[in-house]
Amino acid sequence: MVRTGRRPGNQDTRESIISAAREAFAEKGYDAASIRFIATRAGVDPALVHHYYGSKDQLFLAAMRAPINPTELLPGILAGGPDGVGERLLTTLLRVWDSPVGAAAAAFIRSALTNELMAKMLREFIINRIMRTVAKELALDPAEAPLRVSLVAGQVAGLIMTRYLLRVEPVASLPAKTIVAAVGPTLQRYLTGDLSAG
Amino acid sequence: MVRTGRRPGNQDTRESIISAAREAFAEKGYDAASIRFIATRAGVDPALVHHYYGSKDQLFLAAMRAPINPTELLPGILAGGPDGVGERLLTTLLRVWDSPVGAAAAAFIRSALTNELMAKMLREFIINRIMRTVAKELALDPAEAPLRVSLVAGQVAGLIMTRYLLRVEPVASLPAKTIVAAVGPTLQRYLTGDLSAG
Repeated sequence: MVRTGRRPGNQDTRESIISAAREAFAEKGYDAASIRFIATRAGVDPALVHHYYGSKDQLFLAAMRAPINPTELLPGILAGGPDGVGERLLTTLLRVWDSPVGAAAAAFIRSALTNELMAKMLREFIINRIMRTVAKELALDPAEAPLRVSLVAGQVAGLIMTRYLLRVEPVASLPAKTIVAAVGPTLQRYLTGDLSAG
Repeated sequence: MVRTGRRPGNQDTRESIISAAREAFAEKGYDAASIRFIATRAGVDPALVHHYYGSKDQLFLAAMRAPINPTELLPGILAGGPDGVGERLLTTLLRVWDSPVGAAAAAFIRSALTNELMAKMLREFIINRIMRTVAKELALDPAEAPLRVSLVAGQVAGLIMTRYLLRVEPVASLPAKTIVAAVGPTLQRYLTGDLSAG
């Protein structure tokens, strides 16, 4: 076997950090589980956790074995402000899921759905990290923001389920632009429209 | 033990019919699996299957151990025609899921999601039985109907997931009428609106 430059100890250290992170995120939630707490539990220096994983987001996604970092996609979606945000959100989402990364993302979601710990972590991350950023960047009314972002989460989850997991036709095979035309206005209304005019 | 009037043989016969039905629906799909075929496989007369289970729908739902018969709810939703159908659909759905039956329905969906055979049967039933009825009764353009009903299925699945399975707040706790006002127009647009105006 060819020896790599990496010392064997590194892999063990990384594994200890990931295990500690999983336990901490599940027990304490995304916000309360600090890098310092996770490092202490793994028996390493917090600087080493930062060195290996960068931000808490990245550590969380590594702990989830997530194939995509959704927080990297958010600035591009949110940069244009409220106008057209539904369409940009959906266009970005479909571009990622229709790419080769999509299969890994589908496998990831399947495993999260059948594993209670993973489901809890994923929900925590979506609510406390992604939704909070969306609400803040779009300057949503704080009284309405939680309903708006959870309606978006529900519609997006349902679309991912029909298009990518259960592969219900014709939603599974239609071009992205057809789906964006059909579902984009829903997301736009959930984020910025009048929700009491039923 | 108190003896009931039912002969012990009945329960075995029912079990044989249910087993045969599960296999047949999974192998051949909802349409192709006839009562006659299922009866032959169970080694009983087709009349006995009808006697125990009534229609093929009812046999299917019994085979799935489904706590609700959605086909019984459809006439009330569809009777008023296209106007307001989104609101009626959602009002009916929330009434059932908010009732004591909802907990059984949630357990049913959870088990369907983690069992491939059940997932296949459920998808088959939703697509070939429920969606087809909706499309026909609302006289949807056959070229558009499959997209329309699968968009509805996706939004409904996502709402059930957020409100009842993952219990994401505030969607989980808001009164039904707030959810109907927010999501009803989405279902209405998916069923009868312009889907190309993205």
